[in-house]
Amino acid sequence: MTLIEATDMEAIAIGGAVYGTGGGGDPYLGKLLAQRAIREHGPVRLIDIDELDDDDLIVPVAMAGAPAVMLEKLPEIGPMMAALRSLEALLGKKAKAVMSIEVGGLNSTIPFSIASATGLPLVDGDTMGRAFPEIQMTLCTLQGIAASPLALADEKGNALTMNTISNAFTERFVRSITMDMGGSCCMAIYPMTVAQARKAMVRGSITMTQRAGQALFDARARHLDPVAELVRVTEGFCLFKGKLADVQRTTDGRFGRGVAQLQGLDDYAGQRLQLLFQNEFLMARTLDAVLCTTPDLIVLVDLETGEPITAEQARFGLRAAVLGLPCVPAWRTPEAIALVGPRYFGYDHDYKPVEQTVMDR
Amino acid sequence: MTLIEATDMEAIAIGGAVYGTGGGGDPYLGKLLAQRAIREHGPVRLIDIDELDDDDLIVPVAMAGAPAVMLEKLPEIGPMMAALRSLEALLGKKAKAVMSIEVGGLNSTIPFSIASATGLPLVDGDTMGRAFPEIQMTLCTLQGIAASPLALADEKGNALTMNTISNAFTERFVRSITMDMGGSCCMAIYPMTVAQARKAMVRGSITMTQRAGQALFDARARHLDPVAELVRVTEGFCLFKGKLADVQRTTDGRFGRGVAQLQGLDDYAGQRLQLLFQNEFLMARTLDAVLCTTPDLIVLVDLETGEPITAEQARFGLRAAVLGLPCVPAWRTPEAIALVGPRYFGYDHDYKPVEQTVMDR
Repeated sequence: MTLIEATDMEAIAIGGAVYGTGGGGDPYLGKLLAQRAIREHGPVRLIDIDELDDDDLIVPVAMAGAPAVMLEKLPEIGPMMAALRSLEALLGKKAKAVMSIEVGGLNSTIPFSIASATGLPLVDGDTMGRAFPEIQMTLCTLQGIAASPLALADEKGNALTMNTISNAFTERFVRSITMDMGGSCCMAIYPMTVAQARKAMVRGSITMTQRAGQALFDARARHLDPVAELVRVTEGFCLFKGKLADVQRTTDGRFGRGVAQLQGLDDYAGQRLQLLFQNEFLMARTLDAVLCTTPDLIVLVDLETGEPITAEQARFGLRAAVLGLPCVPAWRTPEAIALVGPRYFGYDHDYKPVEQTVMDR
Repeated sequence: MTLIEATDMEAIAIGGAVYGTGGGGDPYLGKLLAQRAIREHGPVRLIDIDELDDDDLIVPVAMAGAPAVMLEKLPEIGPMMAALRSLEALLGKKAKAVMSIEVGGLNSTIPFSIASATGLPLVDGDTMGRAFPEIQMTLCTLQGIAASPLALADEKGNALTMNTISNAFTERFVRSITMDMGGSCCMAIYPMTVAQARKAMVRGSITMTQRAGQALFDARARHLDPVAELVRVTEGFCLFKGKLADVQRTTDGRFGRGVAQLQGLDDYAGQRLQLLFQNEFLMARTLDAVLCTTPDLIVLVDLETGEPITAEQARFGLRAAVLGLPCVPAWRTPEAIALVGPRYFGYDHDYKPVEQTVMDR
């Protein structure tokens, strides 16, 4: 068990934005919320799943909605708690721990507020090892763990529960209700026993985000190249360096979709790179080659500071590096690629592991 | 208490279509479902609300969705039962009776199937005294009775419950989920005590529909003018007789909207009438005058048989009479007119009681 203090949230939030691959909402908001909760209620007990019993109930808590909406309609603890309590009531069982559904931006830090406010421990891990835009896109789905029963709540006091026949239906219902709730809402979702979680979760991924964030702070303190440090600590690859030339962005209220264009710098001068996103960056391609696609992680970071840039923050003039990080092996089976691979998102391209693409170049 | 047998459903279904004012789904489907249930499980005990105790729980059950969808995706008892049981579980209380939310088409007959299948009595009454297209459009809303907690279920096995801050939010959520469930779904909604129901309900409205249906059968048997008989038994007015010349109809998946044009016959020769509908007929107007608007009832009936014609069934060539029936007085307060009057539906016209319009002509 590790105690997470308010200051620890700095590295976790930055690291969460790295693994958030451009999506998952602004980690800054989640950090502020978590820090306020920790100052008020005390530090968060980050535990390994083996500290719990097999039958204990773990409940991931998360926000749903387009990141752009959450910049205006700030996340709050109240509806998170309402969702958690309402799910517990439905299940007739109390949660023994909360968890992050994804280690990406807002949703990697949101559960810290709840853990602090409830006194429940936070399990070190998540259900993706990254961030994804749709609810069925978890390793839980691949293990047959249902997203429902789940509970939704908004800041106005509306609350819903649902029990669906598939995680794809859950995504459909939650997406509609999220729109009706004003573009974002709070969820207590994927309730699972410790035994189930063990099969599906990415273990230690909160610590992993903290390590990535800390590497950036250390690089700054020791005057090292932060991009190189980040590549080292994430065991990733630098795919491109360039200047953001153009960002096309649409928010249909459900997702933030778009394309960011980069013009090469340094070794990449004269080249161009496109980053396609739907909340998260899903494909990085040049004119003649695809460099990295979902489910591998595409991370856009500031060339000077190494700090991650979300798809929402991407704007003309930023000098950035594009990193490719191998996803966890569980995302590389044919079933997983069908669930979250490039073709699901409408890209006519077969998935190829990023390390293989890098080797082939 | 009156026992309702399968044969009684004939008059009730026809009468339900009269008070359904063109909407509420095809009563034929509800009738078949009710008759099958009654043959299998026995007759329905239709009771007066005074046969129950003040604290007893009454649960209206109904279908939501566009009538056009229900012609293809037939209503079933299974999801109705699922919705009822799920709401009872949420409330921690068993229903002592079921009720019709509206005496219109499908939803006036749907509760008979549930009453028969569960053995619960059916309260003689409803929450509108007619049919309306949106969930908050009940006399319950005017009495501060909430539509939620409520439960939804579909024929695939998906189930939801919700607890909202207003009946308008309930309408919004249910409408989205109904779309996601394929255009129709089953609801257990507006749970209320007998004491609450007494304040809000229209008493005896099931018997009222049965009387209207029976009047048509009697007229046929005795070779009387069925339209005149219907006017007499409903205490309504004949506003127009004509031939359906054109029906413009759109279904956005939420509502069936449109306009039906009639060319005058007999005393109305040379005149034209427009019927505007959103599921239900909401306004009847000539070129120079509005004859009847919501919340008064506009009923389109076949000129020869007196049988009601729903907005879905209206088609070129039908010879029809347009009746105007005064709504119950509770719909005529300023608050009620704000909830269901012509301006709510976007018509730039002040409500005027139909009997007054008829007198002024």
